[in-house]
Amino acid sequence: MSQQKYVYFFGEGKAEGSAEMRAELGGKGANLAEMTNLGLPVPPGYTISTQACAYYYQHNGIYPDGLDEQIEANLAKLEKAMGKKLGDPENPLLVSVRSGAPVSMPGMMDTVLNLGLNDETIKALIKQTKDERFAYDAYRRFIMMFSDVVLSGEEGEPNYRPGLKRHKFEELFDEVKEERGVRQDTEVDAKGLKEVVEKSKEHFKEAYGKEFPADPKEQLRLATNAVFESWNNPRANAFRKIKGIRDDLGTAVNVQAMVFGNMGEDSGTGVAFTRDPMTGENVLYGNYLGNAQGEDVVSGARQAMPISEMREIMPTLYEELKGHAERLETHYKDLQDIEFTVEKGKLFILQTRSGVPTATGRAVIKILVDMAEEGLLGEGEEGRKQAVLKVQPDHVDQLLHPQIDPTVEVEPIAKGVNAAPGAAVGAVVFTPDDAVSEAQAGKDVILVRPETTPDDVHGFAPAQGVLTQIGGATSHAALVARGMGKPCVAGCDQISIDLDGKRFTVGDIVVNEGDTITIDGTTGDVYLGEIPTIPPEMTDELRKLLSWADDFRWLGVWTNADYPRDAKVARDFGAEGIGLCRTEHMFMERERLPIVQEMILASTVEERQAALDRLLPFQRDDFIGIFRVMDGLPVIIRLIDPPLHEFLPVHEELLEDVTKLRIANHQLGGVFADELEQKEEMLEAVEGMREMNPMLGLRGCRLGLIMPEIIEMQARAIITAACMVKKEGVDVHPEIMVPLVGHANELKTTKDKIEAVAKQVMEEQKITVDYKIGTMIEIPRAALTADEVAEAADFFSFGTNDLTQTTFGISRDDAEAKFLMRYVEQGILTENPFQTLDRDGVGKLVEMAVENGRKTNSQLEVGICGEHGGDPSSIEFCHQVGLNYVSCSPFRVPIARLAAAHAKLKE
Amino acid sequence: MSQQKYVYFFGEGKAEGSAEMRAELGGKGANLAEMTNLGLPVPPGYTISTQACAYYYQHNGIYPDGLDEQIEANLAKLEKAMGKKLGDPENPLLVSVRSGAPVSMPGMMDTVLNLGLNDETIKALIKQTKDERFAYDAYRRFIMMFSDVVLSGEEGEPNYRPGLKRHKFEELFDEVKEERGVRQDTEVDAKGLKEVVEKSKEHFKEAYGKEFPADPKEQLRLATNAVFESWNNPRANAFRKIKGIRDDLGTAVNVQAMVFGNMGEDSGTGVAFTRDPMTGENVLYGNYLGNAQGEDVVSGARQAMPISEMREIMPTLYEELKGHAERLETHYKDLQDIEFTVEKGKLFILQTRSGVPTATGRAVIKILVDMAEEGLLGEGEEGRKQAVLKVQPDHVDQLLHPQIDPTVEVEPIAKGVNAAPGAAVGAVVFTPDDAVSEAQAGKDVILVRPETTPDDVHGFAPAQGVLTQIGGATSHAALVARGMGKPCVAGCDQISIDLDGKRFTVGDIVVNEGDTITIDGTTGDVYLGEIPTIPPEMTDELRKLLSWADDFRWLGVWTNADYPRDAKVARDFGAEGIGLCRTEHMFMERERLPIVQEMILASTVEERQAALDRLLPFQRDDFIGIFRVMDGLPVIIRLIDPPLHEFLPVHEELLEDVTKLRIANHQLGGVFADELEQKEEMLEAVEGMREMNPMLGLRGCRLGLIMPEIIEMQARAIITAACMVKKEGVDVHPEIMVPLVGHANELKTTKDKIEAVAKQVMEEQKITVDYKIGTMIEIPRAALTADEVAEAADFFSFGTNDLTQTTFGISRDDAEAKFLMRYVEQGILTENPFQTLDRDGVGKLVEMAVENGRKTNSQLEVGICGEHGGDPSSIEFCHQVGLNYVSCSPFRVPIARLAAAHAKLKE
Repeated sequence: MSQQKYVYFFGEGKAEGSAEMRAELGGKGANLAEMTNLGLPVPPGYTISTQACAYYYQHNGIYPDGLDEQIEANLAKLEKAMGKKLGDPENPLLVSVRSGAPVSMPGMMDTVLNLGLNDETIKALIKQTKDERFAYDAYRRFIMMFSDVVLSGEEGEPNYRPGLKRHKFEELFDEVKEERGVRQDTEVDAKGLKEVVEKSKEHFKEAYGKEFPADPKEQLRLATNAVFESWNNPRANAFRKIKGIRDDLGTAVNVQAMVFGNMGEDSGTGVAFTRDPMTGENVLYGNYLGNAQGEDVVSGARQAMPISEMREIMPTLYEELKGHAERLETHYKDLQDIEFTVEKGKLFILQTRSGVPTATGRAVIKILVDMAEEGLLGEGEEGRKQAVLKVQPDHVDQLLHPQIDPTVEVEPIAKGVNAAPGAAVGAVVFTPDDAVSEAQAGKDVILVRPETTPDDVHGFAPAQGVLTQIGGATSHAALVARGMGKPCVAGCDQISIDLDGKRFTVGDIVVNEGDTITIDGTTGDVYLGEIPTIPPEMTDELRKLLSWADDFRWLGVWTNADYPRDAKVARDFGAEGIGLCRTEHMFMERERLPIVQEMILASTVEERQAALDRLLPFQRDDFIGIFRVMDGLPVIIRLIDPPLHEFLPVHEELLEDVTKLRIANHQLGGVFADELEQKEEMLEAVEGMREMNPMLGLRGCRLGLIMPEIIEMQARAIITAACMVKKEGVDVHPEIMVPLVGHANELKTTKDKIEAVAKQVMEEQKITVDYKIGTMIEIPRAALTADEVAEAADFFSFGTNDLTQTTFGISRDDAEAKFLMRYVEQGILTENPFQTLDRDGVGKLVEMAVENGRKTNSQLEVGICGEHGGDPSSIEFCHQVGLNYVSCSPFRVPIARLAAAHAKLKE
Repeated sequence: MSQQKYVYFFGEGKAEGSAEMRAELGGKGANLAEMTNLGLPVPPGYTISTQACAYYYQHNGIYPDGLDEQIEANLAKLEKAMGKKLGDPENPLLVSVRSGAPVSMPGMMDTVLNLGLNDETIKALIKQTKDERFAYDAYRRFIMMFSDVVLSGEEGEPNYRPGLKRHKFEELFDEVKEERGVRQDTEVDAKGLKEVVEKSKEHFKEAYGKEFPADPKEQLRLATNAVFESWNNPRANAFRKIKGIRDDLGTAVNVQAMVFGNMGEDSGTGVAFTRDPMTGENVLYGNYLGNAQGEDVVSGARQAMPISEMREIMPTLYEELKGHAERLETHYKDLQDIEFTVEKGKLFILQTRSGVPTATGRAVIKILVDMAEEGLLGEGEEGRKQAVLKVQPDHVDQLLHPQIDPTVEVEPIAKGVNAAPGAAVGAVVFTPDDAVSEAQAGKDVILVRPETTPDDVHGFAPAQGVLTQIGGATSHAALVARGMGKPCVAGCDQISIDLDGKRFTVGDIVVNEGDTITIDGTTGDVYLGEIPTIPPEMTDELRKLLSWADDFRWLGVWTNADYPRDAKVARDFGAEGIGLCRTEHMFMERERLPIVQEMILASTVEERQAALDRLLPFQRDDFIGIFRVMDGLPVIIRLIDPPLHEFLPVHEELLEDVTKLRIANHQLGGVFADELEQKEEMLEAVEGMREMNPMLGLRGCRLGLIMPEIIEMQARAIITAACMVKKEGVDVHPEIMVPLVGHANELKTTKDKIEAVAKQVMEEQKITVDYKIGTMIEIPRAALTADEVAEAADFFSFGTNDLTQTTFGISRDDAEAKFLMRYVEQGILTENPFQTLDRDGVGKLVEMAVENGRKTNSQLEVGICGEHGGDPSSIEFCHQVGLNYVSCSPFRVPIARLAAAHAKLKE
């Protein structure tokens, strides 16, 4: 009976595995095999397959039949290749043991070096290297590493032994250094290191109850088992659970002959990227450290040299390395991140992997566009396709906001919700008026508020960014900031604001008005002082890449824009229409708000109409501006959506004012009577309009059905503007969107009203424009009855923010901080459904609505305008269910173009 | 070519139609035909079919071919049968013209009497009757009725002629009376009436521009067309739209020979029920008025006699009538409401229809149970089935609450939301403490509050009913009151409460503490003083009827009950389990609330645990009480659901207090420092827990996932109680329900926690109990992913209150008053979806969830515990989609038993 193959050899120019065998050999093992086959100088070794690990688990720690024999045979092969034997007192083989799963997984066992050392073999090592200090240092490190990595276990596991943790051994080393009065490891001589070895062995015996395993075969078996076991430690399990990785995959074990970079000046170790991972420039990039092991590079005790200097010092080796690097890049068709060691003048390649994860977005995009044009990724279209596929949305995102310079190391003073991306630097101001005046005086400012209201909006535009103490990612501040492309950190409850004193505090730190801070809306961090940032930029390579992406994608990319300036930015970024123009932000502008309040507080229809008549020209001019910018493209304008009390003062503040005024007025004999009366009136109005759950209250189309005058004004403004710009020669395509429809009759009734106004306006203007009327699908019932709704709709636009809220029964404002993030931490939800569309629940509704809507209206235009429209995973879903377009904020348009191409190419 | 038949004759003992031809002949016409065929003395006539009306509409007022000829022929037949001719100056035929649609419809043309009169024919009438006064009175009435009914039109219609309205003619009559110095119609002699006729004709000419139509054939054609037209008047159209009646049905026209009850002392008119419609007693019931027309009975100018007196005065006629009545009841197998006229000693039956719509619930139930037992409704089971089908849920509902005595006529002083059914009488109190003390003093009280909070709950139990100024049908007051079976009128914003002055006002009316009022929670009406009520009662007949219903139904009927006393009531009413026992009401009881608040405000887990430990015995004892009452039946206990801030003081009140205290404390040098600090602490806590949309916030299972201690305490209390009662010998079936699940993982995680506690408790108690764990389905996402949720659930219970809120995106509290009722009025929604389950939207989710849930868990027990569980239409839906049971409030259990039987029988 032929046995299953579990062990794969690599060495002497040939390997049994290959890069394709990632599932069996893990990422590391597959690459070692591939490099060996490519003829690269890889130290030989063998890989035990993931299947062996899986068997080990399924059978409670028993090896499968034949594994022992296969290991034996491959070890013999390795010994033969190296001309050394494990445990041989004359010529001992030393090996490294590493885990390597098919997918990269933190928490698994990493590396044991120098395995094979014991009191016998070290003598041979000294003899061979003639370097006693090197040998004892290697032995010391091995005992420490082996104890820590192989035997100490993890807290919570039954085999947890804190006494074997690395730091326990480092303390022994420290004792020796103290005795000798030295501070650096390198100052300790061979004798001292030998003493550390002895102390370590004693400590081990005490902590473990047995002698340190001297038999290299036992060492190897323990290390191999430790790799197997590490697949199942709590951290690895938790990680797999969160990432949805199957538990039965298992990890591979890589056993490889040691090479030493610390065997003198003709030895060394380094890392090299095939191209510059910061800029993308096509030059070999990296560091080299002479007479050192990898650990030393990491510890930073000594300064490594740039790899370009290596060229001058050791030109032959440099050219050899460069040759290998080019070979690997051409072979893998990808930026490579290579680890290498030079042992006594001989170059060994220890590892290669994609360099993309650690490169900047800018570099990745340049590299892949260059590679495509160099023909490295395939001929013509194939190359462009590969480049598009390899660039990730995050790479594009990095380029589109100012970023904190990643090379700067600095601690934030506080952390809030990352509400609108990008970094911003400025002097702190605490009122919108101060923001305006300071900005006019030429200062960059950050507006800091407990939370924001429509009254504060005029302070957003002049500010570089906004920081609030209260509210989450859909708070007023967050929405307005994202709409404007202003960085925003919201709900930063570590800060405590003293508005009267014009300062805020974080613990002991006091930040006064005028002090400079930096906020990072991408991460939610708040820093003291000015932190250097990198500006956003649409590079030539990005432009090129996105034009390639456009050729592949099927899904349209539109934008959410409320103002002509946003529309302009989005159009420049490639937006093909406006999918959501919110009209309420137009109401919130400073000069208009008093008229809006008048309209709301009107006690008769006539009074309301009078206020609306004054608002009409503002609205009309807003639309004229947008229509001009979007000449030739569709513009979806949503009728007023929020509850009207959002345009009035905040209830609590009013209540406090009135209470104070009542007392003062009483005590001072009525001197505040007028003011009190006025405030009391407003309070009464606000109280009359308050709602228990405003999200589910009188808003959206419900407003227009109760007060038709408002939407009639809006329809009039839209159609009038369209008629006027058409006369100018603009190719105008207005689409009017009715929000919050739950029942087809709501849309039908509203549509009748809009059509009546449109007819009248076009008669007045003596010109006709084509327009569409459609609806947001943001209420589960609308999705469930989409067949009926579609009968009255030219288009659907999924408002997945609200649809997620209602489908989950979750108010985002309340939930995000209070429990939603805890849900994600606990693994109850794999993702925040407000960031990535929940396919099982919300997605099911979207799918039903698309299918049923098109059943009764085959011409139905269907898009999405929730924040998910800019999220790559959600965009893929939109493509899969056959939406016509996604609409996202201007700065996400490039990302959406790329993600839409990915969705099509991955089909 | 044979023509379609449009006209159906009835008379001389034979009719062309029958009761089955309701669709063609309308309800009235079909019954006239049926009675004729039964040999009853029905004045002859003919019915023009609804098809003729439909044709008339489809062809813009043109008659179908042959209709004119068929009318002509039937009129001739009628003339022959009566030995009179229409318009004959010697022996004129007079007829009535009435509409009659297949379904009863208000707003359609009703009746024109005495058609055929003109200046010629009246002479013959005088001659024949020898009663000039009678003849002119008939002529006067005819001109008025014809003008009003046939020619005046309706406001908004093109043919609207206000000058022809009835009251214009009555003014003319009034003028004549004034001239003669008399007040009663009967005081005007023949000459006076003749003058009224002349004046009426003049007025007609002026208002119409033409002479009053003298030609009886023209009169008949105009009246026939008017009936056709009335099918399409605005009121009839609106009614059909609301009720979903097809527009193309059309109405029939009944033309029938006149008989006169006002031709002397041997004439008269009356109405008779075949049994007593108030009590259901099997005796002929009704009224008779001698020498009168139907109109006179209605106007109430003269007092009619009870029909029992007729027996003594005219025994032969009475017996004849009784015979006809029995004949009709036996024939129709239903209580009959009969109109009859005696003309010169001869009895005519003019109409018969079901008497059920105007009978009391108690009577209907008794009558149908009696009829079934008499064998009238069919043999054995068939008879019981018919009785069950004919009793409507509303009949049962009437019996289960005290009702305002329907015979009393009194105007309410205000109207609010009908929040919990039944009438209550009591003295007004304004605080819960006053309610307690007044009740202890033996007084019936009504608790009147602006709105209620948990602090007020101890005032509910001692009160007869509750009246609030603010809040709708799901306000705190409404929910608590319904749960307790207390009548409640909520959100009565016409009243203005002065708590300090202990009074409320409605306009000019002032109601002081101690004044007696009556509230009707069934209608929302509020009355001054004590209005007589009828007490609720489970009559013997109802018991019998429901036991029959139980034999037919398939759907289980459970109840929502939080307390043993409610459970007892429900079990007596036939509940087969508890479908929803809410635990939060238990938290709100006075002695427990401080401990609950301590638990909520705890700053450490230990403090919280300590408070929970003190709550545990209370909860355990609550459950023990319920388990004992429900011995042998399942009890579903829902874990805590509302957001915790509902157990804390109201934010606004605290804010006001703190603001006042701050000022006072400052001005008085800190004397309130302690109180202020305490209140400020509470304010801070409340502010920390406030939510924008509490309905969608931290509540339900989310609470338990963030603070597991709470649900662990509840699980411990439930399982401990179950173990303890099992030891007593109680057959206990606890089912633990997890609320507000949106994702299967929420349920799975919670289930793990409950199971761990249950295991521990059963070990401690050394006994095991079977229990189930399941979930509410009240979030759309749970319904959409029911297959996954069902994997972890033993049962589903649809919480259709919240499911309706989230599916519609509507907060009931905010919506009901502000726009939902307007939606129903405007026809945007046909029904309030919180009362009757929305089948298209919410129902679709329910259906999906049942189907998908049973796919992964075939044993899944599925029920509904929202308010819809007590609504007959919704119960029918629950039956159709295959739920196992419905659960409703105790007082709706009998209704649900009946409705469940209906659902099965109507399949």
